[in-house]
Amino acid sequence: MKDFSLYVITGEQFYPHRHYLEVIEEAIQGGADMVQLREKKKTKRELLDMARQLKALCDRYKVPFIVNDHVDIALAVDADGVHLGQDDLPLEEARKILGPDKIIGISTHNLEEAKRAEEGGADYIGVGPVFPTNTKEDVVDPVGLEYVRQVVEHIRIPFVAIGGIKLHNVDQVLKAGAKRICIVSAIVGAENVKEAACAFARKLETVR
Amino acid sequence: MKDFSLYVITGEQFYPHRHYLEVIEEAIQGGADMVQLREKKKTKRELLDMARQLKALCDRYKVPFIVNDHVDIALAVDADGVHLGQDDLPLEEARKILGPDKIIGISTHNLEEAKRAEEGGADYIGVGPVFPTNTKEDVVDPVGLEYVRQVVEHIRIPFVAIGGIKLHNVDQVLKAGAKRICIVSAIVGAENVKEAACAFARKLETVR
Ligand code: NI
Repeated sequence: MKDFSLYVITGEQFYPHRHYLEVIEEAIQGGADMVQLREKKKTKRELLDMARQLKALCDRYKVPFIVNDHVDIALAVDADGVHLGQDDLPLEEARKILGPDKIIGISTHNLEEAKRAEEGGADYIGVGPVFPTNTKEDVVDPVGLEYVRQVVEHIRIPFVAIGGIKLHNVDQVLKAGAKRICIVSAIVGAENVKEAACAFARKLETVR
Repeated sequence: MKDFSLYVITGEQFYPHRHYLEVIEEAIQGGADMVQLREKKKTKRELLDMARQLKALCDRYKVPFIVNDHVDIALAVDADGVHLGQDDLPLEEARKILGPDKIIGISTHNLEEAKRAEEGGADYIGVGPVFPTNTKEDVVDPVGLEYVRQVVEHIRIPFVAIGGIKLHNVDQVLKAGAKRICIVSAIVGAENVKEAACAFARKLETVR
């Protein structure tokens, strides 16, 4: 897997008057180097169309494109990988379907889940929610920076901190040891998406 | 595709105090010869578990097992096929993922959709809802028996009439030309599931 540091996720509720392709392109131009399609209220057919368009965009910028949850849609558009929650298809099933070369990321909320993902062959894990967040409908209690520190100490595969990370609290996350962060509303919901992405990218440069 | 005539679909809301495996097994014993897993409120992981169990059950009875909507779950459990609505993954994408040997069924509500499915290589189509139904959340207006007659006249691939079919109205459906019917609540929600299936199977024998 090509390494990444600034991972952005779609969220149509954050840019109701803009087209997702424009928003994500600006995020990439600002420095986002991995993109995930995550929309919980779309039909499969709508998701397929979005996935196809985003895959073409990401290919142009040579940025990996990841599909949340839907392994079938990832297959259909030849996405670079999938991101799976603890209630989604298990890692081993997704790996069987996608083969060894696709990226599989797993959301984790504690060290036990992180270790299981690592042992199961995940390419990266999500670590969070670090802070309270209103992005997901099924809100999980924040796990805090302590879980980030545990992962730094005990997990060897790449991890990305996620959940409520904003410009005003990102320093704490980086100080806890994160080298990759996942941002939703603070980038795609920003007034100037490119500048917002750029501001996070500059923060990340300080820890590379 | 092995032919079928009595297609049953799961629907946990119809047997809240019973286990789905027991209910579906009784339906098969009564004469159901195709089974579909359709649950709209389960996580992928719950669906995967159900799919695995139902596949094993159906294999024992040599009855094809079909997964609604989720092509990835169908792959994971090596189901015999998928059933796709008009908002699900399109036929051509599902075919690419599943290959030529898996069954793909498509829900249709008018002749245009039916023809598109036939031309696209569907193995069978669903034709309905024939009568009003409360099985699906996203309720489609009933298309009536007239659409069944149109399909009999214009479509050559197998079709299965679906939607609100009960013992008291099934004769009309068969008279309109259907030789395969899909039943949910009138079988899986019956007090005696096996007898209910058997009653429909006997009706179908009169048109074979
Ligand atoms: Ni659907």
